[in-house]
Amino acid sequence: MGSTGPGHRPREQGTRPPLGFAVHDLLRHTSEAGEGLLEEHRADPTALTVVLADVGVLLDGASALHGLALLDGVEPMAQVLLGTRAGTPILATGLDPVALQRLAAHGDRAVADLRMLATAGQVPQTQVGYLAQARSLLAWHATHPFCSRCGAATRLSCAGSRRDCDGCGARHFPRTDPVVIMRVSAGDAVLLGRQRRYPPGTYSCLAGFVEPGETIEAAVARETFEEAGVRVGSVRYVLSQPWPFTSQLMIGCAAEAAHRALDVDLDELEDARWFERDEVHAMLEGRHPDGLVVPPPVAVAHHLIHAFARG
Amino acid sequence: MGSTGPGHRPREQGTRPPLGFAVHDLLRHTSEAGEGLLEEHRADPTALTVVLADVGVLLDGASALHGLALLDGVEPMAQVLLGTRAGTPILATGLDPVALQRLAAHGDRAVADLRMLATAGQVPQTQVGYLAQARSLLAWHATHPFCSRCGAATRLSCAGSRRDCDGCGARHFPRTDPVVIMRVSAGDAVLLGRQRRYPPGTYSCLAGFVEPGETIEAAVARETFEEAGVRVGSVRYVLSQPWPFTSQLMIGCAAEAAHRALDVDLDELEDARWFERDEVHAMLEGRHPDGLVVPPPVAVAHHLIHAFARG
Repeated sequence: MGSTGPGHRPREQGTRPPLGFAVHDLLRHTSEAGEGLLEEHRADPTALTVVLADVGVLLDGASALHGLALLDGVEPMAQVLLGTRAGTPILATGLDPVALQRLAAHGDRAVADLRMLATAGQVPQTQVGYLAQARSLLAWHATHPFCSRCGAATRLSCAGSRRDCDGCGARHFPRTDPVVIMRVSAGDAVLLGRQRRYPPGTYSCLAGFVEPGETIEAAVARETFEEAGVRVGSVRYVLSQPWPFTSQLMIGCAAEAAHRALDVDLDELEDARWFERDEVHAMLEGRHPDGLVVPPPVAVAHHLIHAFARG
Repeated sequence: MGSTGPGHRPREQGTRPPLGFAVHDLLRHTSEAGEGLLEEHRADPTALTVVLADVGVLLDGASALHGLALLDGVEPMAQVLLGTRAGTPILATGLDPVALQRLAAHGDRAVADLRMLATAGQVPQTQVGYLAQARSLLAWHATHPFCSRCGAATRLSCAGSRRDCDGCGARHFPRTDPVVIMRVSAGDAVLLGRQRRYPPGTYSCLAGFVEPGETIEAAVARETFEEAGVRVGSVRYVLSQPWPFTSQLMIGCAAEAAHRALDVDLDELEDARWFERDEVHAMLEGRHPDGLVVPPPVAVAHHLIHAFARG
């Protein structure tokens, strides 16, 4: 009954470890969300919830799913319905960090960082998918307590898939920002760059937000030119990924460069350069002489770069 | 110096009239936008502006571009920089409807509806592209005078590519909503539906917003199942389009249905059914016996359906 099936696995992935946050098997109920939907599912004795404070996730052993009784006496910052799995409601509960730490101080419980969790394989990939949805939704609620139209307070409605303003009547919907991330290649070389905030030695694909009035293909061309001074020819979509920091849709593309000459924007990037296929292999396999690496499989960039290395 | 080149024309388009809003040749300056950028470009005597009130566009003969002198004595609701074309700054100016009508009451001037304009070919397609960017940006500014975090007033900054809150220091960026629109096929038949708000006889592709924590492929599968009860197998990206009502990124896909049995959500749709290829040809050519038609070439749905008809 899930919304993803075997047909929706990201392409070009082969036998690599899975792309992070992209596996999700809940039946979402957004289209039917009305008043009372959250209360109805919360009253289900089988209901489960993930519990987060920002990117901190409550674990109990190898699971991020908890019974609602865990929350007795705790005041959530927000609670939303993620969906149902074979009829079992799955909720997301947002807490402040102090309340989360207090809950974690019992039994096998611990707090894990969402990004680490997606990499470590500590909990099932489906739970990582629920956590991605939870993190994006809860972060949106946390940053939208007021109405952008009139400044009055808004309140969570429709089981968390909307916020309503009683001041002006505006209805606000969760935001998802489309981002293009592109593997730009010229023959046997691929263009990779590094931002100052990356871990040392890490080079990745260029990326940027799609702007209003822009196609995916135009965004790829614009960002590649802005960041590296490279014009691209054909652009091909490869795969997509939800990225919950805070709520992005990563649109992975492959583009062909029209030339190798670079003009790197050093305000945006610390460095960008061409890497020959052999060098990319060394980076993927952790044997680059200068210790250079690419992002781990959790990130869409890894899969784009890996497919290039494979040829 | 534009951000789109011949390589970025939407695929599967053939010799059809162009997809609306997808042609754009400005160099955007979002990455360098700081204080004073708008003022600097506004002081350029060659600067031009498009002028809108909601979806009403000011025309002067066959052009939507005007010199800034036109605005003498007029108080804009918002003014933003769209980009430059060979060094010429192109701005967008938002007015209230009364001010727009007053400006239109001179010489060859008139007010046109943006949707009509994209269809009619009255102004160059590049200008339709500027107008799409303008409409999305101006609508975002109009609906975000207050900070969603603290409720204080926000002000336009960075030439219109940001709004800043002096209350809490939050920086807000324009929103673009990713939407999947899919041609679902089963052999020689394609699944089309109609919403009650469509013009009489019009059938189109199913579509819906990408939700937080969801891939493009999962959104296609979820929406097709929610609206028509149809499970899909493989999903393939085809082309994308900016849709400025108000600020959507239409992600056009082709999906294969796993079965033909339907379970249509009649709250969402008035009808959905399978159309054989011959019937689709008749709809495209305006000779369907019941007068059924598909959307015009301005919409991405037209191009998805046309490519199916071609086989």
